[in-house]
Amino acid sequence: MKKGNRKVAKTLNIAIAGLGTVGAVVAARLLAPDSATHNTGLKLIAVNARDKTRDRGVDLSAIEWVDNPCDLADMAQVDVVIELIGGTDGVAYELVKRALKNGKHVVTANKAMMANHGFELAQLAEASGVYLGYEAAVAGGIPVIKALREGLAANKVRRVSGILNGTCNYILSEMTQKGVDFAPTLKQAQELGYAEADPEFDIEGIDAAQKLTLLTSLSFGTKPDIAGVDVTGITNITSRDIDYAGGFGFVIRLVGVCEQVAEDDNSILQWVGPCLIKKNQPLAMIENVTNAVQIEADMVGQIILQGPGAGGDATASAVLADVHDVRLYDKARVLLPVFGQPTNTLKAIKKNAPLAPCPWYLRLMLVDAAGSMAQVTSVLAEHGVSIEEIVQRSPENDAINKDAGRPVIFITHNVQLDVLETALNKLRSLDVIDADMNYLPVFSG
Amino acid sequence: MKKGNRKVAKTLNIAIAGLGTVGAVVAARLLAPDSATHNTGLKLIAVNARDKTRDRGVDLSAIEWVDNPCDLADMAQVDVVIELIGGTDGVAYELVKRALKNGKHVVTANKAMMANHGFELAQLAEASGVYLGYEAAVAGGIPVIKALREGLAANKVRRVSGILNGTCNYILSEMTQKGVDFAPTLKQAQELGYAEADPEFDIEGIDAAQKLTLLTSLSFGTKPDIAGVDVTGITNITSRDIDYAGGFGFVIRLVGVCEQVAEDDNSILQWVGPCLIKKNQPLAMIENVTNAVQIEADMVGQIILQGPGAGGDATASAVLADVHDVRLYDKARVLLPVFGQPTNTLKAIKKNAPLAPCPWYLRLMLVDAAGSMAQVTSVLAEHGVSIEEIVQRSPENDAINKDAGRPVIFITHNVQLDVLETALNKLRSLDVIDADMNYLPVFSG
Repeated sequence: MKKGNRKVAKTLNIAIAGLGTVGAVVAARLLAPDSATHNTGLKLIAVNARDKTRDRGVDLSAIEWVDNPCDLADMAQVDVVIELIGGTDGVAYELVKRALKNGKHVVTANKAMMANHGFELAQLAEASGVYLGYEAAVAGGIPVIKALREGLAANKVRRVSGILNGTCNYILSEMTQKGVDFAPTLKQAQELGYAEADPEFDIEGIDAAQKLTLLTSLSFGTKPDIAGVDVTGITNITSRDIDYAGGFGFVIRLVGVCEQVAEDDNSILQWVGPCLIKKNQPLAMIENVTNAVQIEADMVGQIILQGPGAGGDATASAVLADVHDVRLYDKARVLLPVFGQPTNTLKAIKKNAPLAPCPWYLRLMLVDAAGSMAQVTSVLAEHGVSIEEIVQRSPENDAINKDAGRPVIFITHNVQLDVLETALNKLRSLDVIDADMNYLPVFSG
Repeated sequence: MKKGNRKVAKTLNIAIAGLGTVGAVVAARLLAPDSATHNTGLKLIAVNARDKTRDRGVDLSAIEWVDNPCDLADMAQVDVVIELIGGTDGVAYELVKRALKNGKHVVTANKAMMANHGFELAQLAEASGVYLGYEAAVAGGIPVIKALREGLAANKVRRVSGILNGTCNYILSEMTQKGVDFAPTLKQAQELGYAEADPEFDIEGIDAAQKLTLLTSLSFGTKPDIAGVDVTGITNITSRDIDYAGGFGFVIRLVGVCEQVAEDDNSILQWVGPCLIKKNQPLAMIENVTNAVQIEADMVGQIILQGPGAGGDATASAVLADVHDVRLYDKARVLLPVFGQPTNTLKAIKKNAPLAPCPWYLRLMLVDAAGSMAQVTSVLAEHGVSIEEIVQRSPENDAINKDAGRPVIFITHNVQLDVLETALNKLRSLDVIDADMNYLPVFSG
């Protein structure tokens, strides 16, 4: 055990690549720390962005401007490169690889890059003995990477479930509160800046899937495997379905779930999709752009972390937390592995497990013909889909849509998706139901 | 920047003092790690407890037994001492001081010791360059120390509010759900093991106050100041009050709040007491023995962490997380300060701020006399206590207690406690009200 007087850590020299909303906040905080105790010893020395002339509300005139972001990786005096350019491949990926190879610590908010290249980058960081921080890549300002990797280090994680995409949660919350349908709510989200002009990345669940696969790696010691995530977006969710689900005591939310189904064959479920959650469960209470992560583990039982999933300030908080962590390693080699354990112990996921049998919400539109309900229930029974609850609404009493047939809504007992889909294919061949149907799993908290 | 191949950290030799519920779980996990990746490199080499013969469900026959816990601090081969004896002073305190002075890392779950001697112990840890971990001392298995000290390191914290005592939260939840009064609920909690035979430490708010003062130090860079906490317990909460508060849309919970009221004169509020919380607020939804901590900070906005606040497994999870953190410093001096910043920058709290003006719940029992209500409202008005809502119940319609006078319940506008108490003193002198009254602040989320 070494003894002696505490030495003040040397100044860490920092470079930022990418000066969007997050980068501008990080730069501003580094240049004007609002608390003397916290941000001392951190010095911004170089920046890069596409447009040098843009007003970002922060005076960068004294900071070296670099036109090619990759050059930041070669600057001898840079200790930490903060990558906020984004994108799976391309220049962000090149910059980060080069910085790690050159022995620079790297902090990034880039979930796409980490989900696709995280294993390779972790190996590079490990080889150079540097820190690769990505707290900002998952759930914005919530310190969930730190909680999983360090706070719950002694636990065997059983399952992680999360509301990981603020855009989707905002849209679904709004649809629930206002009874408005998907398209106008998306438009409103775009106007408010909660959704991108090209919203596909969020509303198709891709963003949530990228975050989920990083949580999977941290939870189960697997290589990030974005291709193994079963993803469904929220574009097929109607205010009709939200209303019907509400009648059974549920809300609809986009949830990501990862779970180790069988340890021996390394079978992992990675699932992102809209599902029904009982209104009194914690994840059902997460409104608007808030994110939440529910962790179930052997020692701790269940813990839940919630907070802002996006936004310049909150994301910058996570970026700067990683920079602060670098200071802990300032004089030492980094012993904290990127995914919680050395890369040579990370396993490939052998089998992408399907969603376990669970109750399903099933909404059909019946044609108004004698015996139609009997035909539907017979088909479900024949296929082994047993029913927990049924509501049939007459068109006149259906507040949502008075002229779209006779909605009938089932909540099934536990059933495997492929069994349900076989039954649904049979139902589709009947002439007593309309083509418009929807089915969603019920989340078990 | 150092480069080279990653070296495997040497084995950390661990000693445990105190083998109660938590200690037995920690020992069992260290002796039989259930995941090869997580607990490697941690070796239990010595233990101490009062009773060597007790069956703790873990085979300690191969581990050196030490009769005097302080001897663990002198064993040359021990790297980390885990202190689970408990108590403010006495042997736990002696052991920890000696271990830190001897250059051993220390991990403790002892909130009483940390709240009373945390500053001195942090100085000792700093002087020896060792880690002093106390994650288990606050909110059990929830990694809230790590979140505040590291995850939110770049933030200026504005306020931390928490449900920090599982015993009180269990009692208040049960009283709310079952409509039963305090005494029988406490008895039931004792039978279930949620409350101690001597419950004072929990129900008088002392346990919550000790945890709060550690959160205060981490949040505002102050020396732990347990004497500065304004504490009220829950013994005066009746099921009558819970019922009336429910009528206004509130639940009653024991909450701890710390807040920096004025930065310039280092004026800090540290308050623990029962209060009303609107039912739709996150802290109102925390039931039974669960703990929750709500952190408001400049960058991240608001984050909430919830989980088990006690229990052998959950607390052991936090203890082992600290031990895992020690491994990060295995070859290096520790640069992570105990309270988030070097001890020579921790300030003494200059002024214990009073609770800010807020709405108050006020429950009086009126004598059945003409004009009694007019007298009460006049006194309140004269003293500047203005009223937001009033409910007066006739004794016949009062479900809780049909023969105890005429309850009248006020929710005031924002008022300072001393103003309210002056008015209440005047009210007490009137002969139209009964001596039985209660008043509780309304928590603003």
